[in-house]
Amino acid sequence: MSDRVIKAALLGLGTVGTGVYKVLKSQEEEMSAKVGCKVEITRILVRNVEKAAAKVKDPSVLTNSWESILEDPEIEIVIELIGGINPAREYILQALNAGKHVVTANKDLIAVHGHELLDAAHAKKVDFLFEAAVAGGIPIIRPLKQCLAGNHMTEVMGIVNGTTNFILTKMSQEGMEFKDALALATELGYAEADPTADIEGLDAGRKVAILASVAFNSRVVFNDVYTEGIAKITSKDIHYAKEMGRAIKLLGVARNTEDGIEAYVCPMLIPSTHPLATVNDSYNAVFVHGDAVEDAMFFGRGAGELPTASAVVGDVFDVVRNILAGCSGRIGCTCYKQIPVKKMEDTHNRYFLRLKVEDRCGVLAEMTAIFAKYQVSVAQIIQKDTKVEGCAEVVVITEKVREGDFRTAIEEIRNRDSVRKISTIIRVYGK
Amino acid sequence: MSDRVIKAALLGLGTVGTGVYKVLKSQEEEMSAKVGCKVEITRILVRNVEKAAAKVKDPSVLTNSWESILEDPEIEIVIELIGGINPAREYILQALNAGKHVVTANKDLIAVHGHELLDAAHAKKVDFLFEAAVAGGIPIIRPLKQCLAGNHMTEVMGIVNGTTNFILTKMSQEGMEFKDALALATELGYAEADPTADIEGLDAGRKVAILASVAFNSRVVFNDVYTEGIAKITSKDIHYAKEMGRAIKLLGVARNTEDGIEAYVCPMLIPSTHPLATVNDSYNAVFVHGDAVEDAMFFGRGAGELPTASAVVGDVFDVVRNILAGCSGRIGCTCYKQIPVKKMEDTHNRYFLRLKVEDRCGVLAEMTAIFAKYQVSVAQIIQKDTKVEGCAEVVVITEKVREGDFRTAIEEIRNRDSVRKISTIIRVYGK
Repeated sequence: MSDRVIKAALLGLGTVGTGVYKVLKSQEEEMSAKVGCKVEITRILVRNVEKAAAKVKDPSVLTNSWESILEDPEIEIVIELIGGINPAREYILQALNAGKHVVTANKDLIAVHGHELLDAAHAKKVDFLFEAAVAGGIPIIRPLKQCLAGNHMTEVMGIVNGTTNFILTKMSQEGMEFKDALALATELGYAEADPTADIEGLDAGRKVAILASVAFNSRVVFNDVYTEGIAKITSKDIHYAKEMGRAIKLLGVARNTEDGIEAYVCPMLIPSTHPLATVNDSYNAVFVHGDAVEDAMFFGRGAGELPTASAVVGDVFDVVRNILAGCSGRIGCTCYKQIPVKKMEDTHNRYFLRLKVEDRCGVLAEMTAIFAKYQVSVAQIIQKDTKVEGCAEVVVITEKVREGDFRTAIEEIRNRDSVRKISTIIRVYGK
Repeated sequence: MSDRVIKAALLGLGTVGTGVYKVLKSQEEEMSAKVGCKVEITRILVRNVEKAAAKVKDPSVLTNSWESILEDPEIEIVIELIGGINPAREYILQALNAGKHVVTANKDLIAVHGHELLDAAHAKKVDFLFEAAVAGGIPIIRPLKQCLAGNHMTEVMGIVNGTTNFILTKMSQEGMEFKDALALATELGYAEADPTADIEGLDAGRKVAILASVAFNSRVVFNDVYTEGIAKITSKDIHYAKEMGRAIKLLGVARNTEDGIEAYVCPMLIPSTHPLATVNDSYNAVFVHGDAVEDAMFFGRGAGELPTASAVVGDVFDVVRNILAGCSGRIGCTCYKQIPVKKMEDTHNRYFLRLKVEDRCGVLAEMTAIFAKYQVSVAQIIQKDTKVEGCAEVVVITEKVREGDFRTAIEEIRNRDSVRKISTIIRVYGK
């Protein structure tokens, strides 16, 4: 324990920035005993100093000048919480190049420019930590880099977007349709004004890129990740899934296979007995499989002021411990492999398919003949004895098949006169 | 990355020792890229060198001489996996005093002598790590000490014994009685020849002592932890619990309350919707609550050759990273507070009570009058219309009450002529 005070700057005082400010205040009394010395926020970068004044105890720390932070030699740690690519990228690079340590929750940036930032940190032997960028408060980056370092990880996947999980939970538990559940999520503050990044799986895709990179020791960027959203899911699909012993979740999946890494985000049917199936509301969870640890799962709050701040402050304390022990930059980039990322067409999946067909003899035979032509085997099929406008609804779950082949089969089926409508196609998790 | 090889010795080549040997072999090719250099096991301490020869590639590393390890200046890391208090304690102390880093999975030892060992490591500025001592392969010690360091943790609890969780799962899912489920666990190798430490909650109690110490930054030793086993649980209790929307689990609970730490292990009823209720078979899970992170859970394999080895090797790699970065002993003992541990009588709990009473008017009134005298409120009650030998079975769940008061009330009820038998008393988790 020392009398030293380590000075830090906060960039941004939005939800997470305010949370970090609060959490550091609440740790003020015991942080010296815990990590060896005090950390003090001496500068906070905001756009509007006057508006931000009410949020802090001492408004004199507020500034709208990035230079005043960059050029202050006493500031050793920069906590970047403004989000987005620009100017966050420039600020972080400048801070690292100036020998400052950086902690960030910026998934957009890391999923695209992570390599560049980690390289810059390595060159200056400073820390660049980002535990909060994936799954909010849930510890997952450090466990993967350290606790599970004795494993060859083969799979890391999870529910890494709280908004969509809340929507799917409401659809499943209360029979709501997508647009009503989205409206409720917006009303309750779970969904942003423009919910595209959540709904379309883009936010989850960024987290998958980061998780895959850390778990498989090989760089995966956002552009490598196939993404598909949940807007097409109906309560009817969820109902059929339940009947087939499964839940529907928006999953981010990364798999290290013999012929490359698979990385995608899409709604999937998952067995009701799988630990991820019981992760509801806005909770997140990351499920991993390694050759030594076997299955493990990390569950908690994936967003929110204080949970995200918990992860940020954990990183800040680690930076402090490294400074005091003289080992800054102790664990940097761990991507020492170059594994190719597979195209989505080359992944092998099972599929849930709901379609309307003419209610006459031979239609099922036609469809299954096309399936057979492209090596698509049927595992489960449901056709109910209820007809609407001369059509029957058929629901099929296939065995595993190459996605490209399945797509070709679907195009051929879609062109048949007997097929009135392909209502939904959803991938199915499992062997 | 360096050409340096760090030499390590393994003490013990049982299940976990063999696992560590295998995992280190499987990481041989990439550990330099991952952690900076190679680790080589140059000595393995075994009782019988000849018997152990078949288990290793190069039997010349086997020895039955602890001194040959202690006195070998090239050995920088000692991995203690012999278990138990003696001679493990002496070996570890001697190794630490000789300036060697120590990694162990020894919960028995840490739950009693952790303070002494951490002090010895601190004095020599070496690492003493024990991630594998709690919940096998599940990362929990490092997440608590680092990722969640920004929290005031208020609760850490979990299913930390796989044997008893397997038994309770069989009783719940297949209606087996305790002794049959235990026999099956023994047959499948989940239970040891003498299952006392598992069944009576002692094994879980040691883990609770360690978890509480790390989570609340205050020393809790095994002797502070109240323990109660699962031998008294019947399939009938489980059946009633289900009817009341709950599962029965052997929980290790540690809570940091205003008037001290509560630390105990006992079977408990837990709401079926709680994440821990769905943790089945031999899986473990640790649930934590902190003021910033809110709820989080860590799930996985709590025992077994490779999962436990995963945690041990994660620690070994951390020791290596510290050696290379020149910051050994970077994170040592984090118990900087002295919070008293409460007696079990002073904890407040809810209770599930199953009893046989005379089937006549006024008996329930008598019982509830005694309850009222000791501030015990009834929250739920079930009495079925089936009588055996003139007796009715009554099942009650109480509101929260001080345990000491509840015990007094129970003694008074037990002495009533109208009460034929108090079949079971089980605590109930929740407000």
